[in-house]
Amino acid sequence: MSKKYKRILVANRGDSAVRVIRACREMGIETVGVFSKGDRGALHTRLADYAICIGDVQSKDSYLNAYNVLAAATDYKVDAIHPGIGYFAENPDFCELCEECKIDYIGPGSSNIALMGDKVRAKRVAKESNIPVIGDDSVEINSYEECYQYAKQMGYPIILKAAKGGGGKGIRIVYKEEDLFRALELCIKEAEKVFDSGCILVERYIEDAKHIEVQVLADQFGNVIHLGDRECSIQRKNQKLIEESRCTTLDEETRRRMYEGAIDICKNIGYVGVGTIEYILEDNKTFYFMEMNTRLQVEHTISELITGIDLVKEQIQIAQGESLQIKQEDVLFQGYAIQCRILAEYFKDDFVPDFGIITRFDMPGGFGVRVDSAYEADNIVTPYYDSLLCKICCHDQTKGKAINKMLRCLEEMRVEGISTNKEVLMNILKDTRFLAGDYATTFLDTFN
Amino acid sequence: MSKKYKRILVANRGDSAVRVIRACREMGIETVGVFSKGDRGALHTRLADYAICIGDVQSKDSYLNAYNVLAAATDYKVDAIHPGIGYFAENPDFCELCEECKIDYIGPGSSNIALMGDKVRAKRVAKESNIPVIGDDSVEINSYEECYQYAKQMGYPIILKAAKGGGGKGIRIVYKEEDLFRALELCIKEAEKVFDSGCILVERYIEDAKHIEVQVLADQFGNVIHLGDRECSIQRKNQKLIEESRCTTLDEETRRRMYEGAIDICKNIGYVGVGTIEYILEDNKTFYFMEMNTRLQVEHTISELITGIDLVKEQIQIAQGESLQIKQEDVLFQGYAIQCRILAEYFKDDFVPDFGIITRFDMPGGFGVRVDSAYEADNIVTPYYDSLLCKICCHDQTKGKAINKMLRCLEEMRVEGISTNKEVLMNILKDTRFLAGDYATTFLDTFN
Repeated sequence: MSKKYKRILVANRGDSAVRVIRACREMGIETVGVFSKGDRGALHTRLADYAICIGDVQSKDSYLNAYNVLAAATDYKVDAIHPGIGYFAENPDFCELCEECKIDYIGPGSSNIALMGDKVRAKRVAKESNIPVIGDDSVEINSYEECYQYAKQMGYPIILKAAKGGGGKGIRIVYKEEDLFRALELCIKEAEKVFDSGCILVERYIEDAKHIEVQVLADQFGNVIHLGDRECSIQRKNQKLIEESRCTTLDEETRRRMYEGAIDICKNIGYVGVGTIEYILEDNKTFYFMEMNTRLQVEHTISELITGIDLVKEQIQIAQGESLQIKQEDVLFQGYAIQCRILAEYFKDDFVPDFGIITRFDMPGGFGVRVDSAYEADNIVTPYYDSLLCKICCHDQTKGKAINKMLRCLEEMRVEGISTNKEVLMNILKDTRFLAGDYATTFLDTFN
Repeated sequence: MSKKYKRILVANRGDSAVRVIRACREMGIETVGVFSKGDRGALHTRLADYAICIGDVQSKDSYLNAYNVLAAATDYKVDAIHPGIGYFAENPDFCELCEECKIDYIGPGSSNIALMGDKVRAKRVAKESNIPVIGDDSVEINSYEECYQYAKQMGYPIILKAAKGGGGKGIRIVYKEEDLFRALELCIKEAEKVFDSGCILVERYIEDAKHIEVQVLADQFGNVIHLGDRECSIQRKNQKLIEESRCTTLDEETRRRMYEGAIDICKNIGYVGVGTIEYILEDNKTFYFMEMNTRLQVEHTISELITGIDLVKEQIQIAQGESLQIKQEDVLFQGYAIQCRILAEYFKDDFVPDFGIITRFDMPGGFGVRVDSAYEADNIVTPYYDSLLCKICCHDQTKGKAINKMLRCLEEMRVEGISTNKEVLMNILKDTRFLAGDYATTFLDTFN
């Protein structure tokens, strides 16, 4: 039996909170927004039906304080909590706390989150779904000596990964034996700090690989579809900067196998909700499972543009117990979409984040332009959260046309009071290798 | 032989100038923007590559001063002039002046503009294309006595129209004999003032009719396609307020005949460029030719959304002598799109226009939302031009969903320093008759 939510608490901030609030509003569902003392007056608090302060500026005291979030949810008698993107979005403990409070968690069940959040077990699932993985298994490291031996055996470069990590954090690539000790030390420290677990894996590192991911959508009745792929190879320090859908250089047979693998994983683990299977594409025919994100992603926007399907509304409907109304054969891919993440940072000073009052915030517009903003004019960007100001998406018939549209948008955009990465984005878009699709995740390392 | 424009002068202001400048920028064509002294610092001047002041605040001294516009065009050595929407967009004399200056006019030839701009001759073209017209012909009035006799013969209500009119101006509806004299007097005065000709036509007036129009696209090689229909029945004082594509209540056979008629007119007169054939829909099976607009229209945006075709880029390519690359069978209609015109006016005081400094201008965003703005924050709205602040379009799978999205957008939009018609728009959208498609052009007369 499906139900209808009357009120949802959105346990997030910035563009992802705004995204969920908009979907709810269009569906006739009331929203409760939450904010830290650092986000007073933020856009998402203006757009929500109710807005409650849930703690101090630091995320751990507010957005990551499960008890404060759940207290607000209980106070406002919400039917469900949407975790947004980040914070509690892949946290099985929070998911269980919601169950205990008899509040629906909009996302997959805690066991699926826990399973795919554990890189070793996730890799096993992928293998069982006949998706190639790098090495037999990721190797869990118990000591420097052990790591040293495994690395020697695999050959450099190697990659160190926090076993519980995700979102590009807790990762170190090591090119030379003499750098291993220091890298492992830093990686453990970061993993302990960010993911509450110092458990580290070592894998062979594939250089010059592309990052390709497949968007999936699954209901509780076993219906699973994909909404095509996204290429997210333009990254800086493992953070995606420009995303595209679909990848323009992918071999069609490889693409088909990636889609098939993504759907198989979902079916094998009984996945419910929206999710993304991330792959490493070594060459146009060879790919490996990287990880699965059991949540909405920042770049879901471009899949929406090329398919016309609203992923957040689907996600909410699935959580309500409805069955998926879209069949795979109904999913048509129209044109090409690209997203640029506009960040508050000093382009000319090693991309240090910038803070302050946004004095002007003039966004581009027109045909084929989508703006998902985290801020508006007169808002304050604080040092406490990520540096995303807004996402600009362009949708056109071809990649070339979409790039020209994006360049037009970036020229048109006027943000004052704070520095942005507009210039570096424009330089990438103007690079002929970008139009040709001739790049890997290492692209920005060699880019000025 | 097709050519490539390097530089275009955009002979307009506001959202239509912005629209054309954006298309040019994406096509790699330089733009010369023009502005009156009242539009210093306006959005279109910021976005154009060059911006030139062409005269005083009054339109007749600037945007309608052909010599000033052409002097700027000659100075800046442009290849072509795009007239935008309004001003010189349907002016055959201006079109000829461009020819004399050896500058391309982006639009149909002057003879087509003159032909369809003359309501009597246009009606004859429609009849020859087997499109029903009201009465045998419109009757040209030479005296009050003549008008009185014709009206008596037709029966009231009747409609008086400026023979050279368009855009909803120069129109008077007369319900009773005793109002005829005064109405004719006012209509002649307005026609003389706005269209430089006091020539008036009289026709039977069809009450409770819908306004349906068909968007066409034609190249110089005789290829003509349509991009579907738009319903624009939500009007106030003959000015469109909300537009939709496509009409949700139209009988499919009637729709087919409207499309066929629109294409036939274009073929019969050898039309080249974008254009719109406007119809009066008396009931779901009976329609009449109203007029043809030989230019881009304010509501072209929604046709772009449901077809994915950029009308301004097509228009420029056609002017360059290229052949249409889209075949009729390639035009697919995806979902439903709606446009609201956001006007600067006092909703509670008979819709008197408002002026002043826009202190906040926060536009809505997200999936399926298109914003075409004429202004940005800190711009000044003067009393000299039309009151359009921006156009918001929503594109979704169904009319119901698009209405909910539009309501969300209007709630989200924050314009300060100036009054807008947001409230009246929301009231219309919330009316159940609107969702049902149960309305005619008289809808707003009875609407509070």
